[in-house]
Parts: sequence; structure tokens; C-alpha cells
Amino acid sequence: MTHAFDLRVYYEDTDLAGIVYYANYLRFIERARTEWVRAQGVDQLALRAAGIVFAVRRIEADYLAPARFDDLLQVRTAPIATTAARIVLAQDVWRGDSHLFASRVTLVAIGPGGRAVRLPPMTASAAP
Amino acid sequence: MTHAFDLRVYYEDTDLAGIVYYANYLRFIERARTEWVRAQGVDQLALRAAGIVFAVRRIEADYLAPARFDDLLQVRTAPIATTAARIVLAQDVWRGDSHLFASRVTLVAIGPGGRAVRLPPMTASAAP
Amino acid sequence: MTHAFDLRVYYEDTDLAGIVYYANYLRFIERARTEWVRAQGVDQLALRAAGIVFAVRRIEADYLAPARFDDLLQVRTAPIATTAARIVLAQDVWRGDSHLFASRVTLVAIGPGGRAVRLPPMTASAAP
Amino acid sequence: MTHAFDLRVYYEDTDLAGIVYYANYLRFIERARTEWVRAQGVDQLALRAAGIVFAVRRIEADYLAPARFDDLLQVRTAPIATTAARIVLAQDVWRGDSHLFASRVTLVAIGPGGRAVRLPPMTASAAP
Repeated sequence: MTHAFDLRVYYEDTDLAGIVYYANYLRFIERARTEWVRAQGVDQLALRAAGIVFAVRRIEADYLAPARFDDLLQVRTAPIATTAARIVLAQDVWRGDSHLFASRVTLVAIGPGGRAVRLPPMTASAAP
Repeated sequence: MTHAFDLRVYYEDTDLAGIVYYANYLRFIERARTEWVRAQGVDQLALRAAGIVFAVRRIEADYLAPARFDDLLQVRTAPIATTAARIVLAQDVWRGDSHLFASRVTLVAIGPGGRAVRLPPMTASAAP
Repeated sequence: MTHAFDLRVYYEDTDLAGIVYYANYLRFIERARTEWVRAQGVDQLALRAAGIVFAVRRIEADYLAPARFDDLLQVRTAPIATTAARIVLAQDVWRGDSHLFASRVTLVAIGPGGRAVRLPPMTASAAP
Repeated sequence: MTHAFDLRVYYEDTDLAGIVYYANYLRFIERARTEWVRAQGVDQLALRAAGIVFAVRRIEADYLAPARFDDLLQVRTAPIATTAARIVLAQDVWRGDSHLFASRVTLVAIGPGGRAVRLPPMTASAAP
């Protein structure tokens, strides 16, 4: 199931080319991942207290069309592959009917020793 | 030929996990691209005056190991494929002998009408 | 009258001290100013088309208590002094009953020649 | 004595107005403070291991003229007042002979309990 997260483009997000700076799409989709994790019932702060954090291992991203100041964007997040150790999310940014940004993000869970641990069960159960 | 760009990790680059926030590697490699373009003899400000800007079309990135506050990092940039319309760069981040981040970045040149134009010849000639 | 703008703290906003990085409060209050300007009926994109932009001339800010990951914050914006040429806003950040950040921001309007121009009348009329 | 720190303006620093985004001057002067602290012989990482971090309590900043893409800037940092508990720095940004940004930054040291502690003696001895 696809999770939707809306956001507004502000001055901070743009660069002198008049469009959203390319690294900022990664900020946008990370906000959406945080809300997606919350929607799965996972408490990131409780995980952190247990020494577990999510980490991005890989990202593939296509910049299809630029977003601009004051645009209302929607980040759509959906798990596309899940194992005990990692999850791959599709995260796309849309402005109305325009598909601006497409990405595949591979996440792992890192435990207290800095090594990959099993993903929280609630996250795994969120996979299709 | 590989271009080297050194940088220091500051507070602004880190997040609460105590490591460099994942989007900030894209800021680091963009700084390195700017210096790489300059090293090719291309004047980005002159290009801009002519209505031409570089745009990232695609990025693939692997996060191999985290960078931390106060680290001295080196971004290594090398063209790996060039056509009239696009160039693919390998951009890697190292801390001493540790390979922290590996990416492939596809660039195009955008002209006054917002459409892709031929890359500046100097950039093309910089390819291997 | 005070304008309220709510926001969530994400990973991107924090630093290795585990709190919101000090420069990011300026991003937060700029988002709130954009919404405050919109609420006055001023169309920033139309102004930009006319070559007019708002610029910050001065800021005084006190950091009273830190904000943290996942906090829900509210930025409260109120004009406290207005002339034809400049406006001073009080912009404060709260988390529930906790006052985290207090600022005074002086804005001017910059015209096509890069010089200060009269503020848009709608903004002036929004002053108390 | 004034400490000088040079930096280049990159795409990430600009916004759609074609100039450096106002919050980013705080990033610039924080980089300079880190290098200023290092120049005093203070090891921020050792302090952190002891649970002590520097925190900004107040900032006053005047935006005098805009910086632009590709500018070479210099941040000049000098202590102007020091007590056991706090230090006030003057931090200014210059582009050649042009004074672009002037600030006064009040710093305190925060100990393990989250309360202000005495500043490291090396920092205090760095004051005029």
C-alpha cells in the first residue's frame, strides 16, 4: 500500500537555477519515510533508545522534471522488497499529475554494535 | 583522470545519529563537480549568462561506511562515459584508505528553453 | 494578530548533539514567513515576476531551549513595527508550553535595481 | 586577534533569488568557529567525550550585501567579551573589500547534565 506525504517547497529548498536543489529531494523522501515508519506503528524514538537506527544503504534516483518554489508536492512511498535484513522502498515525488522524481531506497537496521540487525517486525509486516 | 577535492565535516553535516546525514553526500559531490568543471576550463557563470546550466538526471549511490564530525574527506571525480548530450561521472568519497560512498552521476546540459543541449565542448574533451 | 505555523522536526534538522542545528531555526521561521505573507493575501510569485523580493536585513535571535527529533513545533509570527520601507516581525518557536526560540527579523522589499522599494501595501496593511 | 577562514559559495548555498540563502551564513560562521576553536588548541571531540559541547545562546546579525555563487568569502572571527560562563564572538563575512555580513554570537559550554558549565580554559585564554 502506498503512503502519501504532502509538503510545500520553500526558499530553503531552491537554488540559483530557480528549482529545487537536487540533494533536497533526499530530505523530502526522508521526511516521508519517517511518517511512513510512524504509520507502521514503529516508534523510532523507542528504537533509538534500544540502540537501533535505520540507515540508507543504497539509493537510485531519477530526476524527471524540476520542482519550484511554492509547489505543493506529494511523496509516495511503497515497500517493493523486504527481507529480514533489508527493505527496499519506492519513493516518488509528484506535483499533481506530474512525476518529478523517482527513487529506490534500500534501508537496513543498525544495532548498538554498529552492525546490521533484523528489521523491526512491524516494519517487515508492512511489506506487501 | 581523477580529480580530487578535499573537505572537512562540520556540525551542519551531521545528524542525531552522530554521522553525516545521507543527503549531504550529494552536497559534497556537487562541490567537487563545481571544482571539476572549473578544472576543465569551463566557466559556469559564463554558461549561465548564456542560459546553460548543468542538471543531474540520475544518481546511483552506495553508502559504504559513515563519515563523522571533523573527518577530512576526499571526493574523487572521474568521467566514465560521455556523449554529446550527457556525461556520467564516478564520484567517490574517501577518508584516508576508507571508501565511504560510491556514486554514479548522470549530467546533462539544459539550455534557455529548458531542453537538453549539447554539453560544452571543453567538458566533452575532459572525458577519457 | 499572531500567525501560527506548525512543523515537525526531522532527521535533516538535527546535528550530532542530538538537537536541532542552530541555523535551521532560520529555515523554520522563513517557512512561517512565507505562509504569513500568503495569509496577508500577498502573492510572492507575482511580486517576483515584478522583480520584487523580500530580503532579511537583520535578525536577533535567542536560543532558549533545544528542540529535538520528532518534536512538533509551532512558529508564531507577528508584526511589531512597520514603516513604508521595512517591517519588523517577532517570530517565536514553541513546543507546547515551552518557548524554545525568540527572534526579531527585519525585512525590506528589494526592487528590480537591487534597491529597497516600498513594501507591498497588503503587507503594510497587515501590520497592527 | 582575528581568525580568518576562507570558503567558496556553492550551488547548495544559494536560493532562487540568486544569492546565498540567509540561514547559510550561520553555517559559514559555524565552520569558522570550529576552526577557531581548533586554533585555540581545544579538541572538540575530546570535550564531547567528556560530555561538554558549545551551544549558541544568542545571535545578532546584519545582512549588509548579498554573496553569490562562486564567490570566495572570508569569515573573520574575534572574541570581544569573555567570562567564565560565556564568550561573545564577532563574526564577519567579507568578499574582498566588501563587508557582507556582521554578527555577534554568544556561546556557552553545556555539560553532561544539560546545564551551562565553565568554558574550557584554553578558550578563555584565547580572549583578548
